[in-house]
Amino acid sequence: MLTKEELPECPVATTVQLIGNKWKLLILRNLMRAPQRFTEMRGTIPGISSKVLTDNLRALEEDGLVLREAFAEAPPRVMYSLTDLGGTLRPIIDAMGEWGEKYKAMRARGEI
Amino acid sequence: MLTKEELPECPVATTVQLIGNKWKLLILRNLMRAPQRFTEMRGTIPGISSKVLTDNLRALEEDGLVLREAFAEAPPRVMYSLTDLGGTLRPIIDAMGEWGEKYKAMRARGEI
Repeated sequence: MLTKEELPECPVATTVQLIGNKWKLLILRNLMRAPQRFTEMRGTIPGISSKVLTDNLRALEEDGLVLREAFAEAPPRVMYSLTDLGGTLRPIIDAMGEWGEKYKAMRARGEI
Repeated sequence: MLTKEELPECPVATTVQLIGNKWKLLILRNLMRAPQRFTEMRGTIPGISSKVLTDNLRALEEDGLVLREAFAEAPPRVMYSLTDLGGTLRPIIDAMGEWGEKYKAMRARGEI
């Protein structure tokens, strides 16, 4: 986690620092719907490796955006969910979804 | 540019495919304010190399989000600006800015 002093001055850059990569954005998209197990998540993010998924989940956890809960069951179950802070990212993911819808519609109509 | 068929089914993933990296998001943030010259842009995105900036600008241009205009002056001037389509990304960048503001304020107050 960056110290307060290390955070970029620009608020957009602050957000980009925390969630500005493809994988984190797709992980957040998944968790906006519902908590997920690791293997389930890996299956719904095409092209992600276990290592990259682990690294990004850990970074999101360290930044207080994602919660990791291990349940001592057989087989052991690990669930990932959004923290309250992580949930406040919803307007960003929603805006990306709305833009994507419009873009896909324009492409489908051959307008772009 | 991806063909219509190659676009992800998920609209969030579509947007992520087009603008989901740190550099593209910071380039878009800059161009939301005003058109910029290459060197000016490089100066306001800490840590970006000329090659990485060139590659990301080219990708944004190919996807119809950024316009590159060369003016035959001495010395030659190249300006980058948002296309109409690129401008429609504003709600995403705004949502990132709003979230970043709130996050920075919470960090400053020691709440997180």
